[in-house]
Amino acid sequence: MRVRALWWDEGRLALLDQRLLPGREKILRLRTVAAVANAIRTMQVRGAPAIGVAAAYGMALAAAQPRSTPEKTAKLLRSTRPTAYDLFVGIETVRAAWSNGDDPLAAAHAYREKIVEECRKIGEAGASLFQRRPNVLTHCNAGALATVEWGTALAPLRVARDRGAKLFVYVDETRPLLQGSRLTAWELAREHIRHAVIADNAAGYFLRTGAVDAVIVGADRIARNGDFANKIGTYEKAVVARENGVPFYVAAPWSTFDGARPDGSAIPVEERDPNEVLEFGGRRTAPLASRARNPAFDVTPAKFVTAFVTPDGVLRPRELAARLSRIARPE
Amino acid sequence: MRVRALWWDEGRLALLDQRLLPGREKILRLRTVAAVANAIRTMQVRGAPAIGVAAAYGMALAAAQPRSTPEKTAKLLRSTRPTAYDLFVGIETVRAAWSNGDDPLAAAHAYREKIVEECRKIGEAGASLFQRRPNVLTHCNAGALATVEWGTALAPLRVARDRGAKLFVYVDETRPLLQGSRLTAWELAREHIRHAVIADNAAGYFLRTGAVDAVIVGADRIARNGDFANKIGTYEKAVVARENGVPFYVAAPWSTFDGARPDGSAIPVEERDPNEVLEFGGRRTAPLASRARNPAFDVTPAKFVTAFVTPDGVLRPRELAARLSRIARPE
Repeated sequence: MRVRALWWDEGRLALLDQRLLPGREKILRLRTVAAVANAIRTMQVRGAPAIGVAAAYGMALAAAQPRSTPEKTAKLLRSTRPTAYDLFVGIETVRAAWSNGDDPLAAAHAYREKIVEECRKIGEAGASLFQRRPNVLTHCNAGALATVEWGTALAPLRVARDRGAKLFVYVDETRPLLQGSRLTAWELAREHIRHAVIADNAAGYFLRTGAVDAVIVGADRIARNGDFANKIGTYEKAVVARENGVPFYVAAPWSTFDGARPDGSAIPVEERDPNEVLEFGGRRTAPLASRARNPAFDVTPAKFVTAFVTPDGVLRPRELAARLSRIARPE
Repeated sequence: MRVRALWWDEGRLALLDQRLLPGREKILRLRTVAAVANAIRTMQVRGAPAIGVAAAYGMALAAAQPRSTPEKTAKLLRSTRPTAYDLFVGIETVRAAWSNGDDPLAAAHAYREKIVEECRKIGEAGASLFQRRPNVLTHCNAGALATVEWGTALAPLRVARDRGAKLFVYVDETRPLLQGSRLTAWELAREHIRHAVIADNAAGYFLRTGAVDAVIVGADRIARNGDFANKIGTYEKAVVARENGVPFYVAAPWSTFDGARPDGSAIPVEERDPNEVLEFGGRRTAPLASRARNPAFDVTPAKFVTAFVTPDGVLRPRELAARLSRIARPE
């Protein structure tokens, strides 16, 4: 059984509450755009492509209510999180349909289908990269939970495994919110893909000792020159991968590519509640007098990226700009 | 009030149980070498210089018992943890005295005093490095708790602060056991040194955005060419510091320098219980079907070290070998 992050269920947006995994598989059914905005903000749903789809359905839920307008609804949803570009693409796709008098729900469904299909194609495009590089490091969760189905970083691994690759995945636990040990490990365990959870600090050890053949991650926003934002810690892994001659891949659907942005220097980076770092499971671990800083993303320069795995194939960073001029630009 | 990790208390080795900090300040009083060995193995006392001193006192406790021998006691204590060189130096120092018919307890006291004095001198030697680089990143705990008093990495910061430097310390939380957020933050908070705890993943972000002027860490073992072992994650921080032109300092007493070892290629790296990664505070966070890998240390090549801060001054890696030929070699 393949994992699905969210789906439409008789007038409601159904989603797995990702804060409770892997301990509990609870399905939320959201009826209002306010509930969707809250689910995105609190990371009940997370992962750039998935929050784009959730927001698209949030627009559709609002459109079915009296007194809501496309612009006000879009503004609410845009305010939930700043970094993932897909959020703005998902919102804009349905806003345009709504404003043009087209069916917003049909637009949301179509957007969802497009993302699922693009992730499936990412899997096809990237699978061959891992046939001879079966020992893979990944950071955070760029699986089905982050993207509706298939995943971005995990899609090529799923396809490679189906084609017979003997994979072993090193899973960065991904503090502070443990999307690696809670979500990526959960997806891999369900599909019997061999893996080991590691402290984020141990990624360098496994890269340096030759245990890792390749790194693949997702992205929250990719600029025209290939600089990209992703979960905090991605930059460190990319720098250390290059130091050790290990290829570093970034997998994303087109909704993550911010084609109008020349480079990563001004990508907005969300800083979240310091208690995510100071506490664990509601229990304080740091001294009461201590403060914390908690940037949720970092920006990795394009020079550390071996290639982008896209729905239309594997592209070198220098090939991006030409390809992106053919992509629509919302926001 | 300055922090002390351990002290001699009327025939017993007294030490702060470092597994319980910062929530609880419990003092253990150990009467037997078996209890000392257990405290080292379970990390009630940790930090290379501190476990060296604890082991020295463990030797002295055994020497006061009938039927114990220097060799058997040394063997027991050597088996507790493999990576920190100080452990072997502390054991050997007291073993030699005991075998020679000298007073083992006097030898342990002298060893303790030597470590404390060397750490004080590390503070004097390194303080000026931070007068114009007050924004400092550190990893794990290389404070008084790791060294009896003063610390290694934290000693220069303490002296710099006393001399008026306006420090701000970024404290890597240091998964899996959180020595940064639990222990380093506790020491800094007690002394009112401004700091922020960060996820280990965020170190790269602060290095890249110019927030960090310098990095300083301790060490568990330093080879003749300057390659060194330290808490897992140190290697990543060193690589990313160099990528960003940020100086990277390693502070250690002479007991950490393994002068007979040409380089870091064969330094033994302890792999600890996978549950340290799979659980948090006794609660499982990863899926039950998932495994983990848990190397506790990594080895950083000398090329990433700007300088070593030693009791006898600040030395470039290329200056080490000549200096080490004048240091005794136990183990």
